[in-house]
Amino acid sequence: DPYLKLFTLNSNPALAEEISRKIGVPMGKSSVKRFSDGEVQMNIEESIRGCDVFLVQSTSDPANEHLMELLIMIDAMKRASAHTINVVIPYYGYARQDRKARSREPITSKLVANLLETAGATRVLSVDLHATQIQGFFDIPVDQLLGEPILSHHFEQKGLEDVVIVSPDHGGVVRARKMADRMKAPIAIIDKRRPKPNVSEVMNIVGEVQGKTAIIIDDIIDTAGTMTLAADALIEAGAKEVYACSTHPVLSGPAIERIENSQIKELVVTNTIVLPEEKKIDKITQLSVAPLMGEAIIRVHEHASVSTLFE
Amino acid sequence: DPYLKLFTLNSNPALAEEISRKIGVPMGKSSVKRFSDGEVQMNIEESIRGCDVFLVQSTSDPANEHLMELLIMIDAMKRASAHTINVVIPYYGYARQDRKARSREPITSKLVANLLETAGATRVLSVDLHATQIQGFFDIPVDQLLGEPILSHHFEQKGLEDVVIVSPDHGGVVRARKMADRMKAPIAIIDKRRPKPNVSEVMNIVGEVQGKTAIIIDDIIDTAGTMTLAADALIEAGAKEVYACSTHPVLSGPAIERIENSQIKELVVTNTIVLPEEKKIDKITQLSVAPLMGEAIIRVHEHASVSTLFE
Ligand SMILES: Nc1ncnc2c1ncn2[C@@H]1O[C@H](COP(=O)(O)O)[C@@H](O)[C@H]1O
Ligand SMILES: Nc1ncnc2c1ncn2[C@@H]1O[C@H](COP(=O)(O)O)[C@@H](O)[C@H]1O
Repeated sequence: DPYLKLFTLNSNPALAEEISRKIGVPMGKSSVKRFSDGEVQMNIEESIRGCDVFLVQSTSDPANEHLMELLIMIDAMKRASAHTINVVIPYYGYARQDRKARSREPITSKLVANLLETAGATRVLSVDLHATQIQGFFDIPVDQLLGEPILSHHFEQKGLEDVVIVSPDHGGVVRARKMADRMKAPIAIIDKRRPKPNVSEVMNIVGEVQGKTAIIIDDIIDTAGTMTLAADALIEAGAKEVYACSTHPVLSGPAIERIENSQIKELVVTNTIVLPEEKKIDKITQLSVAPLMGEAIIRVHEHASVSTLFE
Repeated sequence: DPYLKLFTLNSNPALAEEISRKIGVPMGKSSVKRFSDGEVQMNIEESIRGCDVFLVQSTSDPANEHLMELLIMIDAMKRASAHTINVVIPYYGYARQDRKARSREPITSKLVANLLETAGATRVLSVDLHATQIQGFFDIPVDQLLGEPILSHHFEQKGLEDVVIVSPDHGGVVRARKMADRMKAPIAIIDKRRPKPNVSEVMNIVGEVQGKTAIIIDDIIDTAGTMTLAADALIEAGAKEVYACSTHPVLSGPAIERIENSQIKELVVTNTIVLPEEKKIDKITQLSVAPLMGEAIIRVHEHASVSTLFE
């Protein structure tokens, strides 16, 4: 069988190293530097000829820099005669540009899929792809792992009582339903509606939350506007307390300030995206996807099913 | 015939506007913004259905950002049913990564060509591609315009006497030969050689420079190390004065300081790359490629030959 080798780039080296320890595969040696003019200068410092290579890189902010690093490394790996090039993208950036919201917009999420294939990726491993349709943007196998079991596990351990799982919008109901099944809890949905044009949205709650502990779940928490407004609406509707969780902590712009000042007791996220020091606040708990990703890497390498990982 | 439309992105809008005025085609309306998390948000704000679209963007520093903007815009144009998508890349970044200098390196210049085609570019127009082989990296037509006639014209107008055209290395001799032919001058070559390993390079000059006005020509001036050392060597060998010229003013790192402190009397460059205020020093003269590019755009649109532009 081809040898398994694990490499990382600049978006998330700590996660890659944790995966490396979990699966007992040392980190492959490579160097990613910059030329004086800012162009990426890259070199793989050990042979990968005939190997199954796994390359860990989230296309998180700065998305363009991280994506170009990834594409250039895939090119180098292809030219270095890797047997397979498995790109492990814990957070797949540009996922929300998955359709034309207006005329003459790009579909960047599809473009990125094409670019990865063109560079030479032979398989993609990712977590919570925002839209499952993104799998169909690729003509190579895509394994999508789920963050929900990791998040659910955390709340199960807390021994919360009388819980309701809340989807902050209609797009997230399937995810909330999964968590509710696992936690044997009912669901509720925040039903945003604009009664008339140019009138601000009202947040209606579909489902019973009175006196309950609400856990909001979403895939991406970006500016935290949706999450914190949802928390307000839940408290207003009589929820006892509000927790929130999200796989991908994008946390851009006013996010941290909003969370600090919100009615959210705890926000639970994963490490698909690195949290810089200024985003590591007491309210945020970060869980690791390393065990999940490590297991998936081993299974892909051994040609075993990855889908059983979600059970 | 399809309608000609001209668009620009963020690398070089001033050049695009100058081209627009030259050829009397108004700038197409588009917006390139950023989402809160830094991802590119793009929209074309007028119909381009069935049009010959020309899109101006140098992949200069920050190369990854500029390249991703370009790829995303090409994707949007393809989906907006443009008839042809002609990418006008005055400075083609990553050009120097055109071969594996060591084992297990990428060939980023070829990767970028593949990415542009994958996104949907149907033709490339560029200036001085560093290696002419880069044309062969594409499977779509590539028109390479030359900066040398613009640079030569400037020096011809100065009425310099007893001139010698100098190539700063062996790779640039063809370019120096062209300039020398046009200016009816002899050539000289800086012949860098390392006599023994770990001994510093010596700069030998092949050709007669004693008492002459030397003009060094190169395609890219980056950290200016080569240029300023060449100038020293020329003065040492008895040259009366030294001018320098280069199509692409990358000018990274210590470049400006080196030029200021060098024996170079004047450095002549073009505007394929924007010079920020701090690089606009007295010694640097910037000439425009807008007339050349404008003429090339009109000819491509009219299916006329572009090669006659160099005569
Ligand atoms: N990076 C981004 N940040 C915020 N909104 C985005 C981003 N990328 C795409 N969008 C927009 O988000 C919407 C899709 O989000 P969703 O409805 O959650 O699938 C579209 O209207 C996109 O224009
Ligand atoms: N952005 C860059 N800045 C400096 N050197 C580079 C850059 N890109 C590639 N190179 C190196 O420049 C050499 C090619 O330059 P040349 O010999 O002028 O064609 C190769 O050794 C490359 O590794």
